[in-house]
Amino acid sequence: MTDFKAIKSLFYISEDKIYLDGNSLGPPLKKMINHVTKMINDEWGALLISGWNKAGWIQKPKNLGNKIGDLIGAERDHVIVGETLSIRLYQALAAALQLQPERRIILSDNGNFPSDLYIAQGLISSLNLGHELRIVDPDKVAKNITDQVAVLLLTEVDYQTSRKHDLAELTEKSRSKGVTTVWDLAHSAGVIEISLAKYQVDFAVGCTYKYLNGGPGAPAFIYVSPRHANKIVPILAGWLGHVDPFSFADNFVPANGVDRMRVGTPPIISLSALEAALEIWSNINIRDVREASKRLTEMFIERVDRSCPKLTLLSPRNPNHRGSHVAYKFEEGYALVQALISRGVIGDFRAPETIRFGFSPLFIDEDDIVKATDIIAEVIDNNLWNTPQLRKRQFVT
Amino acid sequence: MTDFKAIKSLFYISEDKIYLDGNSLGPPLKKMINHVTKMINDEWGALLISGWNKAGWIQKPKNLGNKIGDLIGAERDHVIVGETLSIRLYQALAAALQLQPERRIILSDNGNFPSDLYIAQGLISSLNLGHELRIVDPDKVAKNITDQVAVLLLTEVDYQTSRKHDLAELTEKSRSKGVTTVWDLAHSAGVIEISLAKYQVDFAVGCTYKYLNGGPGAPAFIYVSPRHANKIVPILAGWLGHVDPFSFADNFVPANGVDRMRVGTPPIISLSALEAALEIWSNINIRDVREASKRLTEMFIERVDRSCPKLTLLSPRNPNHRGSHVAYKFEEGYALVQALISRGVIGDFRAPETIRFGFSPLFIDEDDIVKATDIIAEVIDNNLWNTPQLRKRQFVT
Repeated sequence: MTDFKAIKSLFYISEDKIYLDGNSLGPPLKKMINHVTKMINDEWGALLISGWNKAGWIQKPKNLGNKIGDLIGAERDHVIVGETLSIRLYQALAAALQLQPERRIILSDNGNFPSDLYIAQGLISSLNLGHELRIVDPDKVAKNITDQVAVLLLTEVDYQTSRKHDLAELTEKSRSKGVTTVWDLAHSAGVIEISLAKYQVDFAVGCTYKYLNGGPGAPAFIYVSPRHANKIVPILAGWLGHVDPFSFADNFVPANGVDRMRVGTPPIISLSALEAALEIWSNINIRDVREASKRLTEMFIERVDRSCPKLTLLSPRNPNHRGSHVAYKFEEGYALVQALISRGVIGDFRAPETIRFGFSPLFIDEDDIVKATDIIAEVIDNNLWNTPQLRKRQFVT
Repeated sequence: MTDFKAIKSLFYISEDKIYLDGNSLGPPLKKMINHVTKMINDEWGALLISGWNKAGWIQKPKNLGNKIGDLIGAERDHVIVGETLSIRLYQALAAALQLQPERRIILSDNGNFPSDLYIAQGLISSLNLGHELRIVDPDKVAKNITDQVAVLLLTEVDYQTSRKHDLAELTEKSRSKGVTTVWDLAHSAGVIEISLAKYQVDFAVGCTYKYLNGGPGAPAFIYVSPRHANKIVPILAGWLGHVDPFSFADNFVPANGVDRMRVGTPPIISLSALEAALEIWSNINIRDVREASKRLTEMFIERVDRSCPKLTLLSPRNPNHRGSHVAYKFEEGYALVQALISRGVIGDFRAPETIRFGFSPLFIDEDDIVKATDIIAEVIDNNLWNTPQLRKRQFVT
């Protein structure tokens, strides 16, 4: 059984804050600074160029990939860390389109993160093959999975509403129609139990700066099923995806397996911080995290139902159908979030009128929810958000 | 006049090492750990999600881009930092091809870094437009610049031989033929004076982990000329390249200028280290660096000529035609480099028989060159490299 109290003590969050935005950016771990300092001094400083071998830098994208792989049910050595999520999605989608070259439809939904759709649009334009990006409502996805579709491109958990797709069911239906699946796990990895291998997902991507707490802009990851890893041709043929990068050969020959998805030189300082963040998972069971997440979001929703009738729930009521954040509609959502932040309750706002509260069980507990909901109710009941200063939008996030 | 002695004291390199591999990976600065620690504690830890605004994270790619822009003669606000060099090259080449859509030839040379050619090959395959990558000898580039060529894709300084192209001349000839230029400045930025705006270069890319000392795998940069920045359509349509990323609109509308080349969420811990590395340039004149670099490589070559006749120079003898490293041929190059490393002189080996020594004037001085050349001569004269242990290739770099 995961000792969440012990885990919470590992994080560095000031005591006057209840941080309900770990779904956007996870907080740092206390030990991270020592870990990064050690990397800069004892590895980079002391070993200089030989750190690539002697400190194992060159292997970090795969080693950390395996740690993430354990959390998402991937086969060993089939996840690689590095680059950004947009790049990983571009790679995955380009590779997925190779598997059914005669099909032209990419199916997605309007609950997908906009950037995923931008990346798909950009790829389609550049391929010059007449692909179509078909965007449907989330609840229409299943019936639109037909044998005309090349790729199903979805984010498991909606960044706005927290509505969670049934990954197993949609992947199974896709398989039955010969449709390749690309799942974006940005709001899933580290908080939802995922079984990529078991459900025979084809490709998956995700970021490490949300529930995996790797730091702002921490590196992304990509999973490629062993069924495809040696078949697909990487669209981004970077030197570390070469079978023998240090031969400096004239022609690109892809590395074996998911290593061919490596692109540029991996960012070791960032990977060092991520390594510290991932180490704690040796004492955490992802099933316990998912159970705790359901319990916490359930408790939050119940308390808001009772004490904040002016907030309209946008998230599914069934905890099996939502991720680990909860979204509400409130007309002056921006001002409300600012008022809450000034009182130590940190959620966020997404235009035009969505407010979000995220619940990472690694550092949020029942006490936090009691305090947070009391403060939310107080701010709404007394219109404390209604000041010119709070209503003036001055920040981009 | 740049005070190189003062600058050298800012670096963290152990006293028993002469680090002649800053052309592959620059060393850390002493103040870097404090800088990164402060970012993790006082920005990420204290500000959490609001760090994006309150600590200015969201602007760092542009602010650091301007600092690099000053070193490469770019117009203000036309350089963006982030992603990896392979990605930046992919973006630049894809954009460059849009400017002369009826032309089909990408001209490069066999002195280019292999990854640049891999990226070009991958892009050509995916575009499905029948482009040709024409690779010629470095000294044949000029005469192959014709009005049939769409893009000239070159690395200014050859990573192996240090042969330096005449950027001004080749860019001028390209302009006269309507050829778009994409320059890779990986071995130039921070050690060679460059005037992108003056010579009307179209696109440039580079990394920050060599002569800019940003750390292993530090973020890359891209320059787009103001003549093109608002015209080109980004092939990698990432969310931060959107004109209004936080509107979360359905369709991609590119940001103004070079901001459209932003892709994923920027890596703030890595950018923090890079920021510390770039701060020292307020006390450094890039012209002084280039002069010192010529002086140092000249002195090294002269001393090796005298004391190490078994080394065959692969680099140009004219300092105006080479970068800041010097390459030699030696049949047992790998073993020689290992023998030198074990004696504190750190160069590197590139298959099949090239050895390289890099001279960053920021932390290498004349004393280092005297010591290094004495040790090299001693190792060669006494065949100290000729042991089974040193000849056994066990490291990838």
